[in-house]
Amino acid sequence: MTSSTTAPQAAPKDPWDLPDVSGLVVGVLGGTGDQGRGLAYRLAKAGQKVIIGSRAADRAQAAAAELGLGVEGADNAECARRSDVVIVAVPWDGHAQTLESLRGELAGKIVVDCVNPLGFDKKGAYALKPEEGSAAEQAAALLPDSRVTAAFHHLSAVLLQDASIDEIDTDVMVLGEVRADVEIVQALAGRIPGMRGVFAGRLRNAHQVESLVANLISVNRRYKAHAGLRVTDV
Amino acid sequence: MTSSTTAPQAAPKDPWDLPDVSGLVVGVLGGTGDQGRGLAYRLAKAGQKVIIGSRAADRAQAAAAELGLGVEGADNAECARRSDVVIVAVPWDGHAQTLESLRGELAGKIVVDCVNPLGFDKKGAYALKPEEGSAAEQAAALLPDSRVTAAFHHLSAVLLQDASIDEIDTDVMVLGEVRADVEIVQALAGRIPGMRGVFAGRLRNAHQVESLVANLISVNRRYKAHAGLRVTDV
Repeated sequence: MTSSTTAPQAAPKDPWDLPDVSGLVVGVLGGTGDQGRGLAYRLAKAGQKVIIGSRAADRAQAAAAELGLGVEGADNAECARRSDVVIVAVPWDGHAQTLESLRGELAGKIVVDCVNPLGFDKKGAYALKPEEGSAAEQAAALLPDSRVTAAFHHLSAVLLQDASIDEIDTDVMVLGEVRADVEIVQALAGRIPGMRGVFAGRLRNAHQVESLVANLISVNRRYKAHAGLRVTDV
Repeated sequence: MTSSTTAPQAAPKDPWDLPDVSGLVVGVLGGTGDQGRGLAYRLAKAGQKVIIGSRAADRAQAAAAELGLGVEGADNAECARRSDVVIVAVPWDGHAQTLESLRGELAGKIVVDCVNPLGFDKKGAYALKPEEGSAAEQAAALLPDSRVTAAFHHLSAVLLQDASIDEIDTDVMVLGEVRADVEIVQALAGRIPGMRGVFAGRLRNAHQVESLVANLISVNRRYKAHAGLRVTDV
């Protein structure tokens, strides 16, 4: 095969060459919940400026004060407005409504969806399939002007919040459509000791990443563990 | 709360106390494909008696002869009949038809579905959602008299077949309804150096495990890797 261009092919980019994100402000919607508070704690501890968002500013401020580490609290709209990267850690039940109401504030922002749509019954947890395919794709549909990614699904809220644990032994699968946005989220995950942010595909493949949490719940129950996932050979 | 029985509660069973499976005959339907041949090789190398199945007995026998290690080849029906545990490693396209035609031979057997229903287009791989929920649930629906489990989804066929590699650095998520059956499959996975079989839930949560292969394909492409998964904290 002959090439129709004369320009030399650029060397493939090192996938571990990630941007410096230390100056970015990270908002956490649903930051008063276990997962959100745990993420806020870990990111703030790693030196990131973090703003917890909640429907009620006073509850967010109370959670922020408890965390210390320079974390601030605000209502969801202010949290979104003041942040460069906004992690969505709200319950699945309120996911669509929360995002819809923040469309303006989230325009242009990197949105990191970490919501796992799950149902529970006597046999344990099972996957719910959102009409849009996944929580992340629902976010992308509701936020056409945002840079939607998905990550931080498989973290144990217990481990995140346990101040006696310094390293979290897990990788973070990061999904998205635009490489530069995904790399910012990968870099953010990599700031937490023990974690790596690993690119794991496009948003159309988010459903299985989200719903794998149902399996990790089974693992935790059988092994009395707080399971995470490591991607091997990378 | 008072107990209505006087018998003491049994101590919870150690989840790593798995049965001895070294005497079981393992059949591999689709054993002439890359995934099936790789699994047959690793299990035979670990000392398991392995029979490769294929639609054409002569092709199965040729593949078996290439592998050595006491591996035999047979047509799918004979492979199923002679095996205690039957791994289903056929292409998704032929999955339903193959299983339907072997319903009698597979009765009473442990069936291990490792099929990943995926589609491919210019943007890469994506999950296909079988009507029954997953390939494993399709198998369970088609084989009411078999003991259907799901496992071995995330293994790299390249690594499995590479004789220069002694250990495969990955865990194997094993799903199923009956603990004793699941534990046999876990034990089987554990015979391959580097691997552990980890219980990861019921068959209704198989879809995300199967389709996560689409994400691993993205990982492999970005990192030029043969990615696997390790479950942490267990």
